[in-house]
Amino acid sequence: MDPDAVAKAFVEHYYSTFDSNRPGLANLYQDSSMLTFEGQKIQGTQAITAKLTGLPFQQCQHSISTVDCQPSGTGGMLVFVSGNLQLAGEQHVLKFSQMFHLMPTPQGSFYVQNDIFRLNYA
Amino acid sequence: MDPDAVAKAFVEHYYSTFDSNRPGLANLYQDSSMLTFEGQKIQGTQAITAKLTGLPFQQCQHSISTVDCQPSGTGGMLVFVSGNLQLAGEQHVLKFSQMFHLMPTPQGSFYVQNDIFRLNYA
Repeated sequence: MDPDAVAKAFVEHYYSTFDSNRPGLANLYQDSSMLTFEGQKIQGTQAITAKLTGLPFQQCQHSISTVDCQPSGTGGMLVFVSGNLQLAGEQHVLKFSQMFHLMPTPQGSFYVQNDIFRLNYA
Repeated sequence: MDPDAVAKAFVEHYYSTFDSNRPGLANLYQDSSMLTFEGQKIQGTQAITAKLTGLPFQQCQHSISTVDCQPSGTGGMLVFVSGNLQLAGEQHVLKFSQMFHLMPTPQGSFYVQNDIFRLNYA
């Protein structure tokens, strides 16, 4: 297993789900999962999904600039993303950075244990 | 112990050391530590310190915009930073994002197990 390839596949899956079927993100979190979204702390699949599906825009398109990955030393993986976010009806793109701490599931997949998201204002 | 206060104190210590005494950063890493700097992967105190002290500028000033922190579930702490970097003699500031995975030491302090740094180009 190439960790960089796994990280890249996760990131592509995450943002394509975000952009096309936001409620489907629920499958990537567990009840222990933590999200810090623009400084707001949220815990658990239900609260995280409610936050993400409740964001005040309908359609968006993430485009990824960089993906970096390191083993976290616990069987998990740290993934660090930078990219652009285009909201429907908005002319300018927003730059963002996001980190994920992925942990393995018994099924051989990964879930998001930690998620920190920030817009990078110009 | 308030994790947010610990994270903030660590971040202030890290960047003030970076800006005033870059070789002193060696004390914050261990031989298992990993740095990914603009996509380049480096491991171990010596190689990481060589990379950071060898960056092609003499003086710099980090200013921090945001610090987010979450427990990593291993006694460690994930710290996510965004900010600006001013290089001596350069007119424009560079925006950066950086994440640290801090792990506890037997002495009750923390070292940097994982470090991922990216400039956020406009």
